Amino acid sequence: MAGVLRFPASDAAQIEPYLPPRTPAGSQSSILPASAAHATQSTNIVRPFVTLTFATSLDSSLALAPGVRTALSGPQSKAMTHYLRSRHDAILVGVGTAEADDPALNCRIAATDTLDAGASNSSVISSHQPRPIVIDPHDRWLLTHSSRVLATQRCGLGLAPYVITAVRVPDETKRLLLERHGGKYIFLDSTRDAPNKVRDGTASFRWKDIMTCVAGNGLRSIMIEGGGSVINTLLAPENSTLVDSVVITIAPTWLGRGGVVVSPDRVYDKNNFATAAARLSDVKWQQLGDDVVLCGRLNNHIC
Amino acid sequence: MAGVLRFPASDAAQIEPYLPPRTPAGSQSSILPASAAHATQSTNIVRPFVTLTFATSLDSSLALAPGVRTALSGPQSKAMTHYLRSRHDAILVGVGTAEADDPALNCRIAATDTLDAGASNSSVISSHQPRPIVIDPHDRWLLTHSSRVLATQRCGLGLAPYVITAVRVPDETKRLLLERHGGKYIFLDSTRDAPNKVRDGTASFRWKDIMTCVAGNGLRSIMIEGGGSVINTLLAPENSTLVDSVVITIAPTWLGRGGVVVSPDRVYDKNNFATAAARLSDVKWQQLGDDVVLCGRLNNHIC
Repeated sequence: MAGVLRFPASDAAQIEPYLPPRTPAGSQSSILPASAAHATQSTNIVRPFVTLTFATSLDSSLALAPGVRTALSGPQSKAMTHYLRSRHDAILVGVGTAEADDPALNCRIAATDTLDAGASNSSVISSHQPRPIVIDPHDRWLLTHSSRVLATQRCGLGLAPYVITAVRVPDETKRLLLERHGGKYIFLDSTRDAPNKVRDGTASFRWKDIMTCVAGNGLRSIMIEGGGSVINTLLAPENSTLVDSVVITIAPTWLGRGGVVVSPDRVYDKNNFATAAARLSDVKWQQLGDDVVLCGRLNNHIC
Repeated sequence: MAGVLRFPASDAAQIEPYLPPRTPAGSQSSILPASAAHATQSTNIVRPFVTLTFATSLDSSLALAPGVRTALSGPQSKAMTHYLRSRHDAILVGVGTAEADDPALNCRIAATDTLDAGASNSSVISSHQPRPIVIDPHDRWLLTHSSRVLATQRCGLGLAPYVITAVRVPDETKRLLLERHGGKYIFLDSTRDAPNKVRDGTASFRWKDIMTCVAGNGLRSIMIEGGGSVINTLLAPENSTLVDSVVITIAPTWLGRGGVVVSPDRVYDKNNFATAAARLSDVKWQQLGDDVVLCGRLNNHIC
């Protein structure tokens, strides 16, 4: 297992305004308190606090190619990502990312840096671990006993995933494996394939259905990390009301053409002219090592 | 004519390490002094100090589409660009940008902000104006009397362009028009079409030939502003030794798919694996308004 990461309080203070409200210790699994419930006019659903967060190159690539794990951000922004994980109940990735990266999806920030009650030893990781959520409409994730996310759970350093799928009877072996580790499958009705839904193969989920599902499992905040289609669909105007904060790390590197690119679908104004697809307001840029971290909020009504 | 722009000395101090050395007033047109000549081992040419500078969206687009002028950066980073112009002898764009934007290519920063000797009135623009250089291999630029760059020269607010072309006998009307304004055509031999040269149609220029040409005209520093193919070819490993500094403005906006994208061609390592195409070192990120300005130097030997 990789080591404990440190994130200075002075850096944490910069991103604090973009994070979900702090919640009392030990209350993670309770049902949503009224103060943490988000009901938006346009969607009329109760949903978690949603932070969209990812790291790109200057040419907006997440990776050199689909399925290629690509180290982009430096140690300080990596620590920032783990600090974010200490501040959210859940962390969501698409099945493509789960397959490509075999990620641990845990939090390795030092307990002392997360304000854990009574924490005094900086070599111990945070007692708070986010619940991994994997979006896998077709139940195609090749999860095994040796997958990092399960190995991490067995070491007591993370939680087993919840897998959201459109398959009514998922693979029995994987179901038992998940459940033995404290994870589970969650069935969600898929919709017909359409733009700006989370798609895998021929099945799609509406983002608001996913958020309702997350909230219904007692998870009050979620960070959404990738991959490309997850991010691009969430940046679409019809989904941007679901996002509370955006935290992006940019590394001073160009990966070059052919990468996995963050760039939402083109948006047209009422006169049918192309216009900016999405814009951030309340913006803060903070240099961390050679990278920059951009915090902001999505403007919801730019069309 | 648009108004005078201000750029605070405190912001200017942040980018100073990335700018060409300050030169004595009035020495712009002299031949290159030894101290300003750059001879690199790999290219063995005398060349100007080269700053690559442009503004993109978060998805690395310069514009919504080819030929569509797209406002991206805010007023503070726009002032920064004009400050950069006050610190360079020349400013280079490709013919596509000259056609799309009809740019003035002048410097509108207040004289007081450029340390002009004796300047005391902040409503007067800089006495230093950069020489516009337009790369137009086929002499296709539709330059007329009313083109902004010439109108700006007639108002005494800028210089007329030097047009670098591969056409031995360029259009006579345009030649006379240019010369009446103090500009000119410069003939440069084109090479066969090949990657990472500045291409327009079937003609290409080698970047080192362009730099030799610029230096040969007594211009000791040049900022290169666009458009897409100009920037992408200059970021290629074989050209990166020609670039001294990179200054990029990033606006917190996604333009969406289909824009004019900055992303150099894919680069492969010696084992034929895709690798990062270009990387900056000595990096500084500075927030200006809602935008960020990234200063750095190109790593020249990443392959």
